[in-house]
Amino acid sequence: MQTSKASQTGAFPAPKTIAVAGASAIEGGNYYGARVLANLVEGGIDATIYPVNPRLAGSRLLELQVYASLSDLPSTPDMVFVVTPVKFVIPTLEEAAALGVGMSVVLVAESGGEDERRRFRERIAEIARTSRMRIIGPNSMGVMNGNLSLNGSFASGTAGGRVPPGSIACLSQSGATISAMLQWFGDATVGFSWLISTGDESATGMEELLQAMVEDPTVRSIMLFLEGVGDGAAFRRAALGARLAGKPVTLLQVGKSDRGREAVQSHTGRVAGTREVFAAVAAETGIIETESFEEFFSTGRTMAQRPQRPDNLPRNRRAAVVTVSGGAASLAADQLAAEGWDLADFSRSMVAALAQSTGQAGLHNPADIGGVWRAPEKIGRAIATIAEDSSIDTIFISLGAGGVFADAVARAIVCAAAAVTQDVFVVWVGISAQVNSIFERAGIPAFGDFPLALRAAEAGAKFSASQAGRKDAEDLMRLLSTAPASMPAHRAAASQHIWTVTEALGDLRQAGLPCAPFDVAAALDPKDIAGRAERIGFPVVLKLSSPDMNHKSDDGGVAIRLCDQVAVEAAVAAFQTVAARKRLTATSVLVQKMEQGVEILVGIKRDPSFGSVLVVGLGGTLAELHAEVAAATLPTTPSFLRKLLSRNSRLNLLLDGYRGQPAVNREALVSFLADVARWALSKDERLLEVDLNPVMISGERISIVDARAVWN
Amino acid sequence: MQTSKASQTGAFPAPKTIAVAGASAIEGGNYYGARVLANLVEGGIDATIYPVNPRLAGSRLLELQVYASLSDLPSTPDMVFVVTPVKFVIPTLEEAAALGVGMSVVLVAESGGEDERRRFRERIAEIARTSRMRIIGPNSMGVMNGNLSLNGSFASGTAGGRVPPGSIACLSQSGATISAMLQWFGDATVGFSWLISTGDESATGMEELLQAMVEDPTVRSIMLFLEGVGDGAAFRRAALGARLAGKPVTLLQVGKSDRGREAVQSHTGRVAGTREVFAAVAAETGIIETESFEEFFSTGRTMAQRPQRPDNLPRNRRAAVVTVSGGAASLAADQLAAEGWDLADFSRSMVAALAQSTGQAGLHNPADIGGVWRAPEKIGRAIATIAEDSSIDTIFISLGAGGVFADAVARAIVCAAAAVTQDVFVVWVGISAQVNSIFERAGIPAFGDFPLALRAAEAGAKFSASQAGRKDAEDLMRLLSTAPASMPAHRAAASQHIWTVTEALGDLRQAGLPCAPFDVAAALDPKDIAGRAERIGFPVVLKLSSPDMNHKSDDGGVAIRLCDQVAVEAAVAAFQTVAARKRLTATSVLVQKMEQGVEILVGIKRDPSFGSVLVVGLGGTLAELHAEVAAATLPTTPSFLRKLLSRNSRLNLLLDGYRGQPAVNREALVSFLADVARWALSKDERLLEVDLNPVMISGERISIVDARAVWN
Repeated sequence: MQTSKASQTGAFPAPKTIAVAGASAIEGGNYYGARVLANLVEGGIDATIYPVNPRLAGSRLLELQVYASLSDLPSTPDMVFVVTPVKFVIPTLEEAAALGVGMSVVLVAESGGEDERRRFRERIAEIARTSRMRIIGPNSMGVMNGNLSLNGSFASGTAGGRVPPGSIACLSQSGATISAMLQWFGDATVGFSWLISTGDESATGMEELLQAMVEDPTVRSIMLFLEGVGDGAAFRRAALGARLAGKPVTLLQVGKSDRGREAVQSHTGRVAGTREVFAAVAAETGIIETESFEEFFSTGRTMAQRPQRPDNLPRNRRAAVVTVSGGAASLAADQLAAEGWDLADFSRSMVAALAQSTGQAGLHNPADIGGVWRAPEKIGRAIATIAEDSSIDTIFISLGAGGVFADAVARAIVCAAAAVTQDVFVVWVGISAQVNSIFERAGIPAFGDFPLALRAAEAGAKFSASQAGRKDAEDLMRLLSTAPASMPAHRAAASQHIWTVTEALGDLRQAGLPCAPFDVAAALDPKDIAGRAERIGFPVVLKLSSPDMNHKSDDGGVAIRLCDQVAVEAAVAAFQTVAARKRLTATSVLVQKMEQGVEILVGIKRDPSFGSVLVVGLGGTLAELHAEVAAATLPTTPSFLRKLLSRNSRLNLLLDGYRGQPAVNREALVSFLADVARWALSKDERLLEVDLNPVMISGERISIVDARAVWN
Repeated sequence: MQTSKASQTGAFPAPKTIAVAGASAIEGGNYYGARVLANLVEGGIDATIYPVNPRLAGSRLLELQVYASLSDLPSTPDMVFVVTPVKFVIPTLEEAAALGVGMSVVLVAESGGEDERRRFRERIAEIARTSRMRIIGPNSMGVMNGNLSLNGSFASGTAGGRVPPGSIACLSQSGATISAMLQWFGDATVGFSWLISTGDESATGMEELLQAMVEDPTVRSIMLFLEGVGDGAAFRRAALGARLAGKPVTLLQVGKSDRGREAVQSHTGRVAGTREVFAAVAAETGIIETESFEEFFSTGRTMAQRPQRPDNLPRNRRAAVVTVSGGAASLAADQLAAEGWDLADFSRSMVAALAQSTGQAGLHNPADIGGVWRAPEKIGRAIATIAEDSSIDTIFISLGAGGVFADAVARAIVCAAAAVTQDVFVVWVGISAQVNSIFERAGIPAFGDFPLALRAAEAGAKFSASQAGRKDAEDLMRLLSTAPASMPAHRAAASQHIWTVTEALGDLRQAGLPCAPFDVAAALDPKDIAGRAERIGFPVVLKLSSPDMNHKSDDGGVAIRLCDQVAVEAAVAAFQTVAARKRLTATSVLVQKMEQGVEILVGIKRDPSFGSVLVVGLGGTLAELHAEVAAATLPTTPSFLRKLLSRNSRLNLLLDGYRGQPAVNREALVSFLADVARWALSKDERLLEVDLNPVMISGERISIVDARAVWN
């Protein structure tokens, strides 16, 4: 028995011999076994294919001889697709591992009760761990590679088993998404290097495959369909690696809502990430988030089409619009404004040049150049003229209809776009397949509606920014490669322990974090408390504390702005009345210096995949009105904390000195956030959640006023 | 010469004789004159068509005899399309008016300098006013009617001049949009009654045409592409009429951003409306706003497809999702949640029934029913079973790909959907033309992406709500038909006059509006001011007023929470220092009772089309952080003011009793808003803007604390 030598094409070997364990005939056989074999054969990979099926041994399937077992094959296969009945999956994998197979793909799903399914997955993980065989699945719909003409899947959406070749790698936790994608891309000229349905990821996780795609030289851009991430730290490193390798990553992540998360959980048992945490990962890794299938597919296609030359113009969201309809012009302006894009003002010389080149005077941006259908050269000239302004980085062409004139106009656009350095995005309402293919062949992104084009252009701008901020990414990569990963949260225990504000403030103060000066009086003694207030310095705040009281403010347990001893004593007397009326036990009083400034909220949450996450938002009275927070996965660098502060627009407004407050010293705030992060990471995994709210900031003075910590 | 008798088909007569003034041959002729004639002939209308062109008189065009002038025709035409050189337009219209033509459509655009263009438009308006001829245009791209096979346009996007027949009326201020739409609808089974490019509306405005479509019995739903509205009051009445007639109106309005507005203005000289004002009009009329061409077209199509039976289930945004992909299921759940839709919980008996009907146990909502491609009957059974829960009003089917199995599955869906009372929306990623036509023929709305389907479903829910609130609409219609319309704002004059807070509060108080008790001291006399404060009642606020001071708070010109005479005298002393340091002249002091409660902003703006508009938002310190306001066009009824309060979610939260404040008495607030509106409407058109901010509300107590009014 001889072993074929697999030639390496990047991360995964290009298989020279492939076995289909469980191969079958369509008629009367196992559908998936038949479909996978047919797709492999029709796909046309340059490899030897061995159908394996003990029941059919010696017969022929699609003119190929069928073998009884992997061990019977003339040579050890590089890759085995497992499509057997579920009970034969483990023995098949064991046999493959023993033979030294490089990779197995399990297209079979677990079955039986929960325990049985868990044991099945654990056994797969164990086989992978104890052999050198990589195992994809179970419950994968396949592994494909357009460049190798490899279609090892049961997808029925491909024409003749064809996978369009190209430089996109797509990793998907949903098999159906890959089927839909193959149909959507159709016979696109933009296609796929690896296209992998990761299935239930018993042995090989999304993170590991992402890392492999980053390293694969045939891959130039990556698309991820994600339900959840197992190892958040590894995912962050791999995604950051893609950023450093200049490979854009387009993401569609599902399960961001409660019901969406439930659906993911019931479907695969995965834990989906929250919107905020993924926004944090996207901010640091440059991952491009999308919100629907069409947006995911069209943005992913665009990122593969965009020229990725290192001398590419930076994309600063400064656009020009060329259209033949005043209505479309206004709509484009509205939509660009809504997304924060800048519609460049045409200079006087540009207006003159456009009058010269298009014959139309007084064209401004957006430029409605009017009747172009019978004069297609006009649109080409408009594009060329506008492109002379190098401050413009993106040109949107917005058209519709065109009837019999459409092809000529499309060709004029293609011709002009090839000669400019700007990104050119075509929006063609009701685009026909024929017009679409003109743009497709030329690598010009074309869309049926403006919002999709704008999302794809926005993706280009994000990618451009992520490439410009290379040093930040390198610093973070260095940190992530050396710092211990923050522990993912364990499932919430039945019993939780919550620190009182004095416990929390005490611990924070001891760790050197800036708290508003405070003292604690164990009894409602007016003189004693007034003395403590005097030592802290007026004005002070008093907070009555008791295990029996939940809503301090509502119950009259808070007195603010006390300016002298008399006021303090009066407040304590009022507390005594409250305590008596409510029959409070074990009362104590927090005496705290009253701080001034803007109020923010700083928190720590524990994500099940990504571990500790720092969140920042508006604080105090505004916290509930603005549920929005911006988050950073930890550990992180000061540079990313600085950016975090700009991501929440209202917080940004507040920090800039809202309503006559002095502007906040952002560097002081950044180093405070770093200290809070360090403090939280120094705690063990039982720390579930921290809320510092409000933190008062005035100029560079920062004071934690209230704090709460939840322990498992 | 005999006059043909036009039979009435609703608002416009079905023309029996049509003249094309300026008709021409494609080769060597005027393109538009040739195109319009060709479209009319190819469209196939059952009418006599007369080409008119003095240069070609006696010859034949498309086998029709050409006449030298309208007066030479054998009979007076019902409808004249004017495609002559621009200098002949006015004489042609004059001739048509003299002959008693019913309607002329001017497809020619104005030319020349601004004055010349204005005179052209004014003359058209005058001809229409002094004759009984309706004139559409100038600069219209045509008037079409699919049911009459009338294609009086120069659109080149139609196949053989065909306009798909149906019950949609589309009015568009953009001709190119109509071309794009004809191509997008293609050979759809949903088509158009009237399709009118309104052009520059010199004589016939959008409002008048909208009213005509409301009255036309062949029209069941309406689509509007709008850049601006001339007569806002007439528009409100017509749109409200559509609501009362049960005809959904789908709107794409452009020019909502500053740049979009500029583009509209430079394009047609129209004034586009702001986002807030149109949201107000949409809230009262039930108009369905869309944001892109694709959304406009697909929502408009859906509103024409939806069954509009009076016994239709109310649509309460309670959905079920059926899919074959776990990923699509989670994504649908995320997107429904993001739009505030409710994903119905399946009851235990529903789960059991689904297990029975689909063979799959434990299906919850969203329901991933798995492999359906080779078992299409399964999806039909799932739909039928879910439809038994009548609390569910909408069923989304989310699929993709399907390859050779797609048609059978589409047919199974169509069959099941026909038998249920719920709305069924199909999302089919990468839908093929063939599959699309299966749904199209069955009148099932199908989309290529979930967000589009959800927007269309949302439109259905909005329409359903607008039909349920019939009494509100009737009350408003009665008010609008009797109350004088509020004056549109005039252009801002060079000089504006701004009332001081004391002038504004004085006027408001005199009008009986509840102001925080106040008094004005003309000099900085501590004893005098303390006496006034005593009479008002403590605590008080003092505000230093001087024409030389802009920022009262920043400059130390405001003292709050003064609880006794001593505090007041100290504050006045501090004001004296400020006044001396800043050398302020003509100082006075506003002494005001310090009010408690939540702070809101109430304002009046003047819209150039819709006149006075009431706006409400968060007030005081929150106003700048939340630019969002909700608006109501005036006059309006208490019912719409009540709804206005719910439209801004943060305001709603605040009114419900945020952070321990008592909930606001909404009825008291509604009657306060009505009083403010009445007060504003009683002022003349020189009143440009009013800001009451903050208005303090505690329970049912309402106090205007600060006020500002800008006069022209």
